[in-house]
Formats: sequence, structure tokens, C-alpha cells
Amino acid sequence: MGMTMTQKILAAHAGLDSVTAGQLIEAKLDVVMANDITGPMALPIFRQMADKVFDKDKVVLVPDHFTPNKDIKSAINSRSIQDFAKEQGLKWYLVQGKCGVEHAILPEYGIVVAGECIIGADSHTCTYGALGAFSTGVGTTDIATGMATGELWFKVPSAIKFVLTGKPGPYVSGKDVIIHIIGKIGVDGALYKSMEFVGDGIANLTMDDRFTMANMAIEAGAKNGIFIVDDQTRAYMDAHSDKQYTTYEPDEDAQYDQVVEIDLSEVRPTVAFPHLPGNAKTIDEVEAMEPIKIDQVVIGSCTNGRISDMRKAAAILKGHTVHPDVRVMVVPATQEVYKECIKEGLVDIFIDAGCAFNTPSCGPCMGGHMGVMAPGEKCVSTTNRNFVGRMGDVESLIYLASPEVAAASAIAGYIANPEKVGDK
Amino acid sequence: MGMTMTQKILAAHAGLDSVTAGQLIEAKLDVVMANDITGPMALPIFRQMADKVFDKDKVVLVPDHFTPNKDIKSAINSRSIQDFAKEQGLKWYLVQGKCGVEHAILPEYGIVVAGECIIGADSHTCTYGALGAFSTGVGTTDIATGMATGELWFKVPSAIKFVLTGKPGPYVSGKDVIIHIIGKIGVDGALYKSMEFVGDGIANLTMDDRFTMANMAIEAGAKNGIFIVDDQTRAYMDAHSDKQYTTYEPDEDAQYDQVVEIDLSEVRPTVAFPHLPGNAKTIDEVEAMEPIKIDQVVIGSCTNGRISDMRKAAAILKGHTVHPDVRVMVVPATQEVYKECIKEGLVDIFIDAGCAFNTPSCGPCMGGHMGVMAPGEKCVSTTNRNFVGRMGDVESLIYLASPEVAAASAIAGYIANPEKVGDK
Repeated sequence: MGMTMTQKILAAHAGLDSVTAGQLIEAKLDVVMANDITGPMALPIFRQMADKVFDKDKVVLVPDHFTPNKDIKSAINSRSIQDFAKEQGLKWYLVQGKCGVEHAILPEYGIVVAGECIIGADSHTCTYGALGAFSTGVGTTDIATGMATGELWFKVPSAIKFVLTGKPGPYVSGKDVIIHIIGKIGVDGALYKSMEFVGDGIANLTMDDRFTMANMAIEAGAKNGIFIVDDQTRAYMDAHSDKQYTTYEPDEDAQYDQVVEIDLSEVRPTVAFPHLPGNAKTIDEVEAMEPIKIDQVVIGSCTNGRISDMRKAAAILKGHTVHPDVRVMVVPATQEVYKECIKEGLVDIFIDAGCAFNTPSCGPCMGGHMGVMAPGEKCVSTTNRNFVGRMGDVESLIYLASPEVAAASAIAGYIANPEKVGDK
Repeated sequence: MGMTMTQKILAAHAGLDSVTAGQLIEAKLDVVMANDITGPMALPIFRQMADKVFDKDKVVLVPDHFTPNKDIKSAINSRSIQDFAKEQGLKWYLVQGKCGVEHAILPEYGIVVAGECIIGADSHTCTYGALGAFSTGVGTTDIATGMATGELWFKVPSAIKFVLTGKPGPYVSGKDVIIHIIGKIGVDGALYKSMEFVGDGIANLTMDDRFTMANMAIEAGAKNGIFIVDDQTRAYMDAHSDKQYTTYEPDEDAQYDQVVEIDLSEVRPTVAFPHLPGNAKTIDEVEAMEPIKIDQVVIGSCTNGRISDMRKAAAILKGHTVHPDVRVMVVPATQEVYKECIKEGLVDIFIDAGCAFNTPSCGPCMGGHMGVMAPGEKCVSTTNRNFVGRMGDVESLIYLASPEVAAASAIAGYIANPEKVGDK
């Protein structure tokens, strides 16, 4: 019986000719990642198992969630992973101010490439599936095991095939497509399954679009999201990494639980209303409602903090002014994105408009710091989760959207359609 | 009997021909300021006294300490002053992302000028003395009273005269001078007194040098610090403010408790060691010790977050790389400073060197967020206080210094002399 992309990668890493959905396997790991929240929890467990990590080039600890250190506890946590990285001589010795958000950093630094088997102690580790890798979030015990042994057990997932066709219209990007999809299948629609993205529409999605979509696979409950590798993927990896990579295509007779066809040309700018990423409404539906006044806008995160996201938001904001009642947090995902924003004049646009332009951090996404909400406040955010209390008080409300919808809303003071912001 | 500069301003605001040290007076207020920590505490007290502020152009609420909102509590606090500012129709409606650190904002926006009587619910309100104003920090009850009535009682302070002569050498700025002075007179050396700065050496100090020095008057226990007004001051005010201003010089027979002469050419780069701003050591004394390894550098704050501070730090860092074990937080004090840093290419220099470049905030200065220290960590900081636990854990250590010493230390990984960093 044929295999999916995910199954082929897992088989290769388990040293097996083939695997089937539901099978338990032990797979070799190419990259094991943790951050300043999960790393400090994993270290004591790791210490019980080993003195040295299995491979100092393959273990990566990224201080990004509560950094710059927001309090003493986070300072202690960051210190512990920095000290550990130094003690173990890790190749990727990442210190605050010199890195960025994990899921943006790993592809950008070329630490992850196609065909790899990657685990991270963070649910959005599925991001790297955009490169054609198997990549998934795990708990701290599993990460500690991975750090010590370089292997981990998996139950081979079944899969849903998403066949993408057509070309997204202007003001429609990966964020709209993935919210549309989660709206269609539900937040448990892909529970413990692979979301495999194929079809000629993929050529019309940038790598940043794909990172955004793979990133949010977990929001449909998926074990992983994965894209076929094309010329754009290869060009990205060639530009960022020296690593060898392997590409996998699904067998023609691969078994999928479901096939979903998405015509990208029909996707509209789409907003996920509180309190679920699957609570999708098109911008047209939003415009038919009473205006939803907002207090905060966040543009950034592992979902939408890359350079194309910054460009899109800046293109909307250029020459406009943020609504007087709204605070806007722009948070580029990495120092490289930050620098590119300066070079292209985007930071000027953001600051002229009245936005705060912050140092890379996960910050506001999980209500950590850098833009937390008071009771009753509403936020349009380019992040990935709008659960109750995710970005602050339990009585605050989060509307997930693209950078363009977020920027248009920042100007209007309510959730707004980027198609209707005039050039200035 | 003659009056000091401070006494003349207080007399004018009390409607009296003259005042003497120790006299209790009721003075009219030109500006009443609070922030996101002190404002929310003052508002309930204000509500007991009045429905409307005494003058909506003269009350200023700046969200700068725990902003961008670091947690739910700070979000609630910021919300409360934003709502109040809107309700009262305050002229200066300052929303996060569109302002900066209070003591940099007020002079930059031209809200404060020479000859005024200013109170702020923040100890470093003494900063505006650089413009020749009487300006002092007060508690929340006093601020509430000021907001309601536009008046406050004061005990007229006696004064110490600092006669500045000569010209500071390269790598010596206002920060070195004020630490040198506090080292000389002690942290209670000017308790409830005015520190009045006069002398022809002042012409050799930039306005930013003077803001830094007036800012730290409180660190010697002073009620206020004040500079004579010269052409530089006038040029600064003309460039920033439409307000009328009045200048005061001390009477020839003004009575001073003490006269201290400072030859600026003899001041060396100077560091305040833990745990007091008066624990001053010259860089030469530091170099004679074992190297003091550091974990963090902070460049910013109301003391040293202005454009000349950024230029000085960047000039040292240019072409160099931050030590791998050190995290560096650069925090420009206002959006205008931020923009100027972009325009002059300073942000590129900081980021190329490996610094985090943050959005304006008081953040790390008071251990609020944006760079908090773990136990045992050491920081070179351009801020104003190195009390136990001020920037994080009680077992962390703070060394106060100029932007140039801070930048040199960031490169070296220990407290270093900027005179010895080679050009690159």
C-alpha cells in the first residue's frame, strides 16, 4: 500500500521500507528544539537520562517566549538554557538579542530542511512542514528523551489531502487560506492526522504563505502539516542552508482519510472570531455586521512575523495614521527580518503611522508580555490562537487575521477590509 | 536676601516677592504628570476631590513603565489612564506606541520649558531642571491634588551651587559628571536641597548631558536639579515648544549651603558600583581590578536614552560584535529618537553587533520587563539606580555607566574602557 509524504519520512527515519497509519515506530531525529519555557522544564529530566546531548549540532534551545526577560522567573529560565547550551557546546548558542522567534529562526538559519524528522517542545513546531519536513510539537519528557537519545517513538498518522488550485486574489494570503480551511474542517478536523498540501495552486503561495499555513496545522488538531517541495522550496533552502535534503512525494496510491479541494481564487480575507481559530468569517460577513471596535493590533509571531508579512502590513499603513484609541505592536520574528524592515523603509512607515516596533519575541501571542490585554479589550492579531485569555484577561477578545486585515483595522479602529483602504 | 534660581521660580509661582529656605508656600503648577504606575493610584484620590482636572492642557499621563503592557495588571493600569485622558479631553492623549519615556517626552514635545513649576509622580521628574525649570517628583496624593487644583504646597529648599568649568574629554559625558558629583557629595549629599548648576563649563555640555545630570539629582537626595539657561537651552526650547518661557538667574547674594567646583576636564569615565549611585569608581580604578564579567548591558532610559546617547553607543559598537555571553538591550527613549536612529543608520549598527533594539519603554530600568536579571547576573546599565534588586533578582548586580562605557563593556564581556576600543 502506498504511503503519504509524512509516512515516507517516518519510514526512512525508522529504517523501515514502509509504515502504515497507526503503526508505532521509533524514529531518528534530525533536530530537537526547545525554548525558554519548555527547555528549563526538560533539563532536569534530561539530566536523569544523560550527561551529554546526542548531537551538539542537532539540539537547539531558543530564548524567545518571555524574552527580553520579562521578570525574574523568566530571567532564571533563560539563564538555565543559555548555561546549558554553553556547557554542552551546542552549535546554535542563541542569546537574547541575537536570534528571534524559534519557528522563524530554524528555517532562516537553515537548521531545518526537507525530508527531516524534527521535534520541538512547542505546539507550532509543525511550521517546518512548509519545507517538506515532518515536524511536530511534543511535551517536555519527549524533548528530554530526544535530546538524550536522538530518537523518539511515534504513532504513524493517517492523513487528509488538501489539493490546492488557483491563485489567491490581492489581500489574500496563507493566513486567510488556513483560517478558511480550519473553518471548513473544524479545530479537531485533522486530529492526530497529517495535513498534506499538494496541487498546482501551491506555486501561487510564497514560502511565507506556506510557513503560515503549516504553522496553524495544529489549530486543526493535526499531528503535522506538510507541503510538497517545489522550486520555491529548493530556492529557499539553497539560500538558507548548507544541509543536504531529501524530498518526498506521496505515492499515487497513498491512502488519505479525506481529500479536500481548495480553489485559492475563491478564498476571501478571513477572520477567526473568538474563541476558536475555526470560527471563520469572511471580511464580507464582517462588513455586514456592526463595526467591531478594537483596542490593540498585533502584527508578528511565528505565524505572521516574516518579511512578506511586514511588507504587506506596511503597504496598507503607508501614509495613514493608526486610530487614536488603538495601540499597535509590530514584532518582527527575527533580527534579519528587523534589519530588512529598516532597509526597505518599513520601520519608518510603522513608526510614522504610530505603531510600536518591538524587538523579536513571541511576546504578545501568548499574553506573555509586549502587549497584554485588559478586561473587555479587543485585539486583531496575526497570531495563531484566540482561545479565552490567550492574550491577556479572560474577558478580552482576539480576532485572528492576516497582516493586511490587521493593518487596515489599526487605521479604522474597528475590524476593517484592506481592500477599502485607499492609497496615500 | 538674594534668592537661588529655584527660589525665584517658587516665589513667582506663589505670587510672592521673595521666599527663603524652609518657608512653606503654595505654588501654582504649570505641568502635572503621572505614569502608568502612579497615575492609576492617583485617580481614585483625584475622584474624591474633583470631577474635572484643573486644566486639560497641563495634566499629562504617560504610559511608559510597564508598556507595552507586560501583564494583565499593567494592561488594566494603562487602560485606566488612557480612559481617563479621553474622558477629560486631555490635550496630550498619549497611547502606547505613539509616545515614549515620560522624562524624554515632556521636553521633546515642548510640554515643559524654562521657569515653570512642574510636578510628576515619578522621582526622576527632576530631569526638566535641565531647561531651567523647577521640577520635582511627588507622591500620588500630591499628584491627585495637583490635578484637581493646579496648586501644591512646598517647603522652599536651600541649595548647593555647582560651579562647572572646563571641557569634558572625549568619552566623558553628563553621566560621568553626575556620577562623579554624587560620588563626591554622597547619595544624601543634597538631601531636600536644590542642586544648581552654573559656570562657563555648562556651555561645553550638550542639552542631553544636562538632562542626564538633572535627571540624577534625586540620586543625591536633591529636591531638584537646575541649570542656568543659555543659548543652547533657548535653541532647544525654540525647536521643541511654542510655549512662552521665563529665565531666572540666581541673585549675586543668593545664599548657598555649599559651593562645589567641578573642573569638567578632570572628570574621567566613571562607573557607579553596586548598590549605590554614589559608589563611584573611575574607569582607571576599574581597569586596575580583576575584570568584572557581565551578562547584560542596557542602553536607554530617561537618563541616557536620547539621540546623542544612541550615537555615542553606536560609535563604539560600529563594526564590533557583542560578546557571545552578553545580551544587550538598547531602548531609545522616544519614537522620535527611534526614527532618528533608523535615519542615521544606528539601528543597523546595533543589530549587526548583536543587540536587541526595543520599542521605547522604561522597561529594564526598574526591573519591570524588557531585560530582567537572574540571581548572580551582572549588568552595565546607563540607567539611574543600582539599588539591590532594582533590575531583577536581589542577587543581581548593577553597574551604572555612560553609553560609551556600556557599549565598550558589551563588546569586551566585562566592564571596559571605551578609550581602548579600536575603530573598525
